[in-house]
Amino acid sequence: MKLTDISSDINEWFSGKGPLSDIVISSRIRLARNLADRKFVSHCSDQEKTEILDILKPVITSLDLGDNLFYFSVADAPEIERHFLVERNLISRHHAFGKGPRGACIASKESFSAMINEEDHLRIQVIKSGLQLADCAKQINHIDDLIEQKVDYAFSSRLGYLTACPTNLGTGIRVSVMLHLPALKMANQTEKFLNAARDMNLAIRGLFGEGTDAAGDFYQLSNQVSLGISEEQIVSTFENKIIPEIVDYEIAARRYLLSENSDNLDDRISRATAVLKNARLISSHEALHLLSHLRLGINMHETLGASTPAIEQLCNLKDNTAAAEKISVRTINRLFMLTLPAHLQLNYGKPLDPTHRDALRAQIIRTALSQ
Amino acid sequence: MKLTDISSDINEWFSGKGPLSDIVISSRIRLARNLADRKFVSHCSDQEKTEILDILKPVITSLDLGDNLFYFSVADAPEIERHFLVERNLISRHHAFGKGPRGACIASKESFSAMINEEDHLRIQVIKSGLQLADCAKQINHIDDLIEQKVDYAFSSRLGYLTACPTNLGTGIRVSVMLHLPALKMANQTEKFLNAARDMNLAIRGLFGEGTDAAGDFYQLSNQVSLGISEEQIVSTFENKIIPEIVDYEIAARRYLLSENSDNLDDRISRATAVLKNARLISSHEALHLLSHLRLGINMHETLGASTPAIEQLCNLKDNTAAAEKISVRTINRLFMLTLPAHLQLNYGKPLDPTHRDALRAQIIRTALSQ
Repeated sequence: MKLTDISSDINEWFSGKGPLSDIVISSRIRLARNLADRKFVSHCSDQEKTEILDILKPVITSLDLGDNLFYFSVADAPEIERHFLVERNLISRHHAFGKGPRGACIASKESFSAMINEEDHLRIQVIKSGLQLADCAKQINHIDDLIEQKVDYAFSSRLGYLTACPTNLGTGIRVSVMLHLPALKMANQTEKFLNAARDMNLAIRGLFGEGTDAAGDFYQLSNQVSLGISEEQIVSTFENKIIPEIVDYEIAARRYLLSENSDNLDDRISRATAVLKNARLISSHEALHLLSHLRLGINMHETLGASTPAIEQLCNLKDNTAAAEKISVRTINRLFMLTLPAHLQLNYGKPLDPTHRDALRAQIIRTALSQ
Repeated sequence: MKLTDISSDINEWFSGKGPLSDIVISSRIRLARNLADRKFVSHCSDQEKTEILDILKPVITSLDLGDNLFYFSVADAPEIERHFLVERNLISRHHAFGKGPRGACIASKESFSAMINEEDHLRIQVIKSGLQLADCAKQINHIDDLIEQKVDYAFSSRLGYLTACPTNLGTGIRVSVMLHLPALKMANQTEKFLNAARDMNLAIRGLFGEGTDAAGDFYQLSNQVSLGISEEQIVSTFENKIIPEIVDYEIAARRYLLSENSDNLDDRISRATAVLKNARLISSHEALHLLSHLRLGINMHETLGASTPAIEQLCNLKDNTAAAEKISVRTINRLFMLTLPAHLQLNYGKPLDPTHRDALRAQIIRTALSQ
């Protein structure tokens, strides 16, 4: 597989097909594991890292998951490809720009990926569209069992799985849910949600890139500690309590905007549509911001039956990159992903400076949305 | 005359018919005069102000200028009408919101107006479209002579005309030129122009309202001192040296944008057009800012033959408020003026809160520019 085989479309978890996927973009579970009787990665020489790779690579690439698996030597990959894998949420920024022998293994549908020699010897993740944490847990536990049949993990009967960072100790699990919360933002209620998440000791990040401050109103919520809590507890609390509550907040904010502040809502959606259809230069940050308004508009039309003038106009647009189908959440999700810097450059075939990226990004969006 | 007779269209000086009026909006000369043997306004009681009004009002309103003259008792006018006269540049903010008996006299075409009991007993002004300072000087001197035939001005053979503020002493003249300099702004060269103006001891203000920081890229340049310099010198230096130089700067900046930065120029014009055609709420400040881009685009098309994609698209728009004429600088000038807060409310017939003004403003612009 070449990365350009997957770079021209969105991946499975961004397809918008899963439960509650108008608000819950995706569910992800990641496990951190280390081999028994070996130093943690940060203490390994390159030789020792190579030995770890030599043990884990054949085990991972030969897993029978019903999907083709591809191995990438992250250490040898061009910078643009490493950026791309980060944008795709297949590897971490730390892994992409770290040092020494390290690799990644990716399922062709991208619902599974593994990092070898990131912070831990092995990190594996399963991502699915919408709220499907129990399914993610079932699948990743199965994969974890398959791997454990072939290698010895570092495990303590008192502490559980041993990990490089104490926050991962125990189950080694990190549960993350990516949410799209544009109405909370527009209704100035984000603070309420952020405070509630902090009270529950959850970590909050943006979806696209670090330090982007939830660009596009995407928030990634995850547990911060795994020691002393069972995997089932964490997954169940997220799936049955925390996330449904936040979804309810967002829906309430959408209803509020529609009933109490529809002029403002309509102004935002109308402007966003107009600018995206007409800009000739657009930064990644602004594109995410404006596409978020379009995603909100289409979702409000589909799930709440909203039909303000701006939403009506938006929903009558055609997606000209898909044989003039009516514009859909899928169109917008696709634009979110394809206009990220590394996606742009990988699909263009060579590196571009920021101004040329801004011009190409604007052109791709104009083409998709032009009537 | 009622103010609503003039409030639904632009005035003569904003018509865009005068010389160089793509860049020089208008030329204005104002004279400050005081009656002999009377206290300055700031020292007058209401009774004394009424006496001054009783002397000057009949003299001014009976002037034979070939245009109908109307008198407004500023002290008695509703707030919205006083705001309107300020937006129209017919009276000063100081006069509109000052205290005590005071009035204004306005020619129906608005090329002449007079304020009684502003800072001085009498201030008269002549405004013309484009760069026509010599013509303004000729006309205002004629008017000044007509008035002086009927009243005694406070005059010192050593100091010239006596005025309340020493900066007006001597000729009592203030020469102002209103400029539209969007390309200097877009090319980040405004600072150069501002420094040059300061070096020449010129005052710089925005056109629409004070404290608006040159909203819409409009700058009003005027002399700060009139003592010791002849009227002819001031007028001639402005008309033949200072203003032509600034006009050349702006033209050079326009050519630079077209040849070196046309992607950015096109992006700005394209976005401005899109937002103005689609916004459902728009503040006065943003409207001025975006209309300025449209004015630049149309002017560059007409005077420099510019035809980038965004400019072509802009110039093919119709002005739907004028029997679907092709969009013109006049259309844009009209929108600049008619979307100012007091204009909006006077034409609507009653006061509106800011949100309703923003909605009405957006609607007026959408209607004018919709295809």
